[in-house]
Amino acid sequence: MADGHANGDEGLTLDDLHVGQRFESGTHAIDEAQIVAFASQFDPQRFHLDDEAARHTLFGGLAASGWHTAAITMKLIVGGGAPFAGGVIGAGGEIAWPRPTQPGDVLQVFSEVLEVTPSRSKPERGAVTLMSETRNQHGNVLQTLKARLIVPRRPPPAG
Amino acid sequence: MADGHANGDEGLTLDDLHVGQRFESGTHAIDEAQIVAFASQFDPQRFHLDDEAARHTLFGGLAASGWHTAAITMKLIVGGGAPFAGGVIGAGGEIAWPRPTQPGDVLQVFSEVLEVTPSRSKPERGAVTLMSETRNQHGNVLQTLKARLIVPRRPPPAG
Repeated sequence: MADGHANGDEGLTLDDLHVGQRFESGTHAIDEAQIVAFASQFDPQRFHLDDEAARHTLFGGLAASGWHTAAITMKLIVGGGAPFAGGVIGAGGEIAWPRPTQPGDVLQVFSEVLEVTPSRSKPERGAVTLMSETRNQHGNVLQTLKARLIVPRRPPPAG
Repeated sequence: MADGHANGDEGLTLDDLHVGQRFESGTHAIDEAQIVAFASQFDPQRFHLDDEAARHTLFGGLAASGWHTAAITMKLIVGGGAPFAGGVIGAGGEIAWPRPTQPGDVLQVFSEVLEVTPSRSKPERGAVTLMSETRNQHGNVLQTLKARLIVPRRPPPAG
């Protein structure tokens, strides 16, 4: 994506995006140590901390915090899964976790552009709705995220 | 919340919840070191890593990753901001970040029960829709989260 749109960033501007465009991220392998470290800091519940205790819960075994899955998804998107000029700036969205993320899962994010909307009030940018599925190595969907992103427009030619 | 509902957990069951019920969490003070540490691991973009670089972006200065705000919100909810039996188990929800979280912000979560729905197929549990606002010490809303949570019902009396 090194087609350099002369706005101080490499990456796609709003004008380079269209509905149906797809992106695929790299991968991230998650293990028990990562799950417990994140949960200890942000979501210290027994099903995110201890495999034995988690067996007696809804999860049936150690599961990552949904917010951990979300954070890894962001890492994968920022790392090339959505190569937008100016970075990946989200205003919000809808998130769901259809199944738990477990130790040994290898996460990858598959994204598709659902909407591209130039801003009426701000000529230099617009909004993109991006649907991102986070899947494991078996193709199971661990998270869906429909996000509203702010993306810059291509600057007008100089002169 | 030590009214012990005999399900192996202290905390409120679905039967103890009603629409309009409100909860208030403790507080969490965020600083530059936390913001940079989280962003380095999960959201390494310049506006989350470097105050000087962030001045030339939409944010106007160092801002926490939205997922960091979400993770701290979860920490505050789990730490007493929503004292549900069985823990705080989310199936998904809608999230928005109306303003950036900045160094020096002291976060607190204010939640309200919007819906309580017993499961038709699973008599032992149900769903709760909880609206949680994460505010800073000035009362500014940094995040809204409308989450669908799974909450156990009170077990029937023995015998």
